[in-house]
Amino acid sequence: MESYPDRHNRHSERSYAMLGTGALGGYYGGCLQKAGLDVHFLLRSDYNHVSQSGLVIESTDGDFTLSQVNAYQDVKDMPRCDVVAIALKTTQNHLLPDLLLPVLKDDGVVLVLQNGLGIEDAVAEIVGSHRVIGGMCFVCANKVAPGHIRHLDYKAISLGEYTADYHPAGITARMRQIATDFESAGIPIDLSEDLLLARWQKLVWNIPYNGLSVILNARTDELMANASTRALVEELMAEVVAGAARFDRHISSSFVQNMLDRTAKMKPYKTSMKIDYDLQRPLEVEAIVGSPLRLAEAAGTNLPQIRTLYRQLKFLDRKNQG
Amino acid sequence: MESYPDRHNRHSERSYAMLGTGALGGYYGGCLQKAGLDVHFLLRSDYNHVSQSGLVIESTDGDFTLSQVNAYQDVKDMPRCDVVAIALKTTQNHLLPDLLLPVLKDDGVVLVLQNGLGIEDAVAEIVGSHRVIGGMCFVCANKVAPGHIRHLDYKAISLGEYTADYHPAGITARMRQIATDFESAGIPIDLSEDLLLARWQKLVWNIPYNGLSVILNARTDELMANASTRALVEELMAEVVAGAARFDRHISSSFVQNMLDRTAKMKPYKTSMKIDYDLQRPLEVEAIVGSPLRLAEAAGTNLPQIRTLYRQLKFLDRKNQG
Repeated sequence: MESYPDRHNRHSERSYAMLGTGALGGYYGGCLQKAGLDVHFLLRSDYNHVSQSGLVIESTDGDFTLSQVNAYQDVKDMPRCDVVAIALKTTQNHLLPDLLLPVLKDDGVVLVLQNGLGIEDAVAEIVGSHRVIGGMCFVCANKVAPGHIRHLDYKAISLGEYTADYHPAGITARMRQIATDFESAGIPIDLSEDLLLARWQKLVWNIPYNGLSVILNARTDELMANASTRALVEELMAEVVAGAARFDRHISSSFVQNMLDRTAKMKPYKTSMKIDYDLQRPLEVEAIVGSPLRLAEAAGTNLPQIRTLYRQLKFLDRKNQG
Repeated sequence: MESYPDRHNRHSERSYAMLGTGALGGYYGGCLQKAGLDVHFLLRSDYNHVSQSGLVIESTDGDFTLSQVNAYQDVKDMPRCDVVAIALKTTQNHLLPDLLLPVLKDDGVVLVLQNGLGIEDAVAEIVGSHRVIGGMCFVCANKVAPGHIRHLDYKAISLGEYTADYHPAGITARMRQIATDFESAGIPIDLSEDLLLARWQKLVWNIPYNGLSVILNARTDELMANASTRALVEELMAEVVAGAARFDRHISSSFVQNMLDRTAKMKPYKTSMKIDYDLQRPLEVEAIVGSPLRLAEAAGTNLPQIRTLYRQLKFLDRKNQG
């Protein structure tokens, strides 16, 4: 395991704030810092540990330790940054009105790394619709202890510019700049001209696997190996495709097939929602399942199998929270 | 607790065979014997206990013990009976070709007390379609130990004559005779002119509560108290109603409302499927969920929320057995 001092190799003028230093914020922020970028981490429960001991990243690409990181408990102590990445659980998004503005430069941009639909709208209400970029993370990573992230598989991010009515915004200069930073840290970036399409595409994976992993107490490999759940996964994916189509976003059958193939090849994986459930944390049901369900149904497209999952997850989440 | 010698008070010439002496067979057979009828019980694992110690029925109507019962391990040892009641789990129905004929009088009738759709068709193939009556048991009872049944709530049975094409067969003389016997034992009998309607009506309760109790590890009262699962129960009931309607069986909204009201007032109850699941027994998924689902979908009516339950239950059943 190598140890990197912070910022010895800085080669971007852009500064990054990571709001949240769990699996996502710790992994991506750690990679960016290791690549020499100026990164600032907001923490809550892990603040004391990380401010003293830094971050440990175990990764299939090679383990590394950042013995010192810029750790903060309060956004008021953070410098204003060029890119403010939201890496909290969506169940914490009620905090965003207080978190975003103190740490965002006037010409800075918020990068929403969370899953689900509708989050950019809420962020845009706080910072303005011209200062929001969506990021869909295709990554298997867990926080295994304070400041200790285990990266298991995949790592790419899809970026897409937000616009108030979700019309496709094309590829912008600041998307390319952010992509350059992440790629310098070894993170492949896919630039999407159409954020809404990319968001629905992400749901093709997230709704069936996150939902069923919690409801059926199952890993992804178990869901794929059983003929009944394999069929159910495909039916749920077809409903996501139907929801997207209602908004004129067309997800090809080869995209769906690719998600199935990737998951079948993936190491046995506990989804993030299942990890939250097992740790008795609130589940991201509303962002990942409830929000797309309501949007589709309000537009007149019935998604009964997703609605079944939604109601089951709401019950389990409530019971799990006591 | 009173103790009744067997058959001291016999007032019907009809003899009954109970194929299976679990909650259903033990409770109803015990009540019939207590009322003086000639009852013969087929047992498997509990044979030694019951042949020596008889049956204990704890009931809200008053506890009673039958210190001696006619217990058998093999149908070849049983007398031929007028009424052969199938009180096995449907997961044992592959045994029926060997069980029914040796114990059924030439002019006898098979009374199918099991849940689900399509069972009478299979029985009719063995004994002929003119010798089958369906019985839907509305009862909360569990076997708590060998030969020990706990009756918790409700007890009525709906009877309906089977016909090969399920055309309504009206009320027949033998239905009235069986009703007289059960009513002499304190069991209210509802005579149904239309077995298929009665079967679908029973599914209005069985599909949502049995299915969700297993999938969500929940009692009926929990499913009713949570707004999400309460809504899901109603949606699933609406799909059962739609399935029935495809076969020109019309279940009124007041029937559905009555099921909801009865369940809300019911003592907190672990469904039979949940009990099977917890004891790692095979689940009656095919009879209760798979069969009606396939019939409706083959007839062109899509039941996506029930299909979701079906696939989830198949996964859990397999995992639980394996």
